[in-house]
Amino acid sequence: MHIGIDLGGTNIDTGLVSEEGVISSRKSMPTRAERGSAEVIKDLLRLIEMLLESNSIQSIGVGVPGTVIRDQGIVNFACNINFHNVRLVHELNQQFDYPVYLDNDANCAALGEAVCGAAENYDTSLMVTIGTGIGGGIVINKRIYRGFNGAAGEIGHMVIETNGLDCACGRKGCFEKYASTSALVWEAKRKLKNQADSFLREMTSDNIDKINGEMIFSAAKQGDKFSLSLIDRYTDYFAEGLANLINIFEPEIIVIGGAVSRQGEYLINPLKEKVHQKVYSKTLPKTNIVAAVLGSDSGIIGASQLWRG
Amino acid sequence: MHIGIDLGGTNIDTGLVSEEGVISSRKSMPTRAERGSAEVIKDLLRLIEMLLESNSIQSIGVGVPGTVIRDQGIVNFACNINFHNVRLVHELNQQFDYPVYLDNDANCAALGEAVCGAAENYDTSLMVTIGTGIGGGIVINKRIYRGFNGAAGEIGHMVIETNGLDCACGRKGCFEKYASTSALVWEAKRKLKNQADSFLREMTSDNIDKINGEMIFSAAKQGDKFSLSLIDRYTDYFAEGLANLINIFEPEIIVIGGAVSRQGEYLINPLKEKVHQKVYSKTLPKTNIVAAVLGSDSGIIGASQLWRG
Repeated sequence: MHIGIDLGGTNIDTGLVSEEGVISSRKSMPTRAERGSAEVIKDLLRLIEMLLESNSIQSIGVGVPGTVIRDQGIVNFACNINFHNVRLVHELNQQFDYPVYLDNDANCAALGEAVCGAAENYDTSLMVTIGTGIGGGIVINKRIYRGFNGAAGEIGHMVIETNGLDCACGRKGCFEKYASTSALVWEAKRKLKNQADSFLREMTSDNIDKINGEMIFSAAKQGDKFSLSLIDRYTDYFAEGLANLINIFEPEIIVIGGAVSRQGEYLINPLKEKVHQKVYSKTLPKTNIVAAVLGSDSGIIGASQLWRG
Repeated sequence: MHIGIDLGGTNIDTGLVSEEGVISSRKSMPTRAERGSAEVIKDLLRLIEMLLESNSIQSIGVGVPGTVIRDQGIVNFACNINFHNVRLVHELNQQFDYPVYLDNDANCAALGEAVCGAAENYDTSLMVTIGTGIGGGIVINKRIYRGFNGAAGEIGHMVIETNGLDCACGRKGCFEKYASTSALVWEAKRKLKNQADSFLREMTSDNIDKINGEMIFSAAKQGDKFSLSLIDRYTDYFAEGLANLINIFEPEIIVIGGAVSRQGEYLINPLKEKVHQKVYSKTLPKTNIVAAVLGSDSGIIGASQLWRG
């Protein structure tokens, strides 16, 4: 058995996970990151302690929402949990004599889906997590590909529109400014400003700040033309980025994660069609595109599999 | 010793190459692809025969300018040499009882630079070959990364300008429409149409169809403002694409090949500076960017190293 830890901005979720990725026991606590890393780590140690009771484990894996220096076991920068240069592996090893593995949460999710999720039967996979931004995780032969400095997979910061929308990374026109859920919502609000009558205005009782991605999909499914055209534009950009990634990397499968993936075939089918029209190698076997299956468990499960390398 | 073959549109270049990548003997013939693949293969067999005289070899490697089905030893499609579904490995094995390895020329060049060229001391490298288009070759731990269908590395067909310039691949705004040598020349001609006086017009005796990449760099080095601004714009786009590739893939080094790489530091230094301003991970170790060193030998040398996998 392995312990998997999803150290997130809201909760610390931990679980006892088999080699095959099945969670047999869970323990969680709110993170309350404002307390500082020392207090958070105390809670983390307590949770591990609880999971260890009468269980023999082989490893502890931790996923964090930020950058890590893996070979030194350090959380370099993770603003959502308020960790800056924290020697997390060292802290855990002070109390527990198990191998501890650390990685960022996007890589953990990708590994989880690759080992025991949607990409289980594929050698090379790319996980694309859609949310406020777009995260990526590259898995080659069931191992995370991290690049020489551990920072590979920042696919959200691939420019697809030179001199396009400003991105927090300092560039203009990044993929995530067009294909994240936030981008979809932002575009909806922008266009609604000049539109008095609309289904989305009705849905939010005229408070368009309440619009979220799910509402737009729901309105589209009910035939709302405005939402349908928003989603059509959204999947155009989404497909542009995915076709780029396929041309560069040719993974056997792309797994789409994040809340938007719950739209399932309603999102995936048109997206797949657009991508396959755009890819360079039209006569060769095609990259499969599917929705993630592990949902919010992907963090725990993925972290528990970090011992694989 | 290994035999390396660069089966190009103009010449068939072959060489006897050591395990370390040193060419000890060469044989070449013009390809004359219009004769059809059977005749070209006859010449190829003759060249190998000549290299074999009194030499014991371990393998034969062949690079071709097109797509291959590697595990079947088939050249799938290579229009420059007029090969369509040619069972090249089978043809060579009919006459020679050595292991024969086949790959496309961009991958061979990348492997050559990785094994005994500019990326010799690096584990992960990306070779970017600039010419009419932009070719790519990804090398991870001294092995070519090919993707599940053998078609990875088509970095020239990464869209960096959604709805931008038309590309032959069917998309709009591909990297190679902005950062290939052809793109630089195309932009020069386009702008010169509305400009009667110019240094480049003088250089070509007012025949702007004669303009090539080298001339533009030469004019810029002599202080021609028009050429300087062309190159400034060119390296902006070039850097945009390279920063994307670094964010996705984080290779330890990027090797720039093709004729433009002969500009050396005059091209590389400003390019590097722009790239490093754009990459996402500004505090982590940076990807090195250098010019290729094997020049036109990279095809033979790279092909001779295909036995490495």
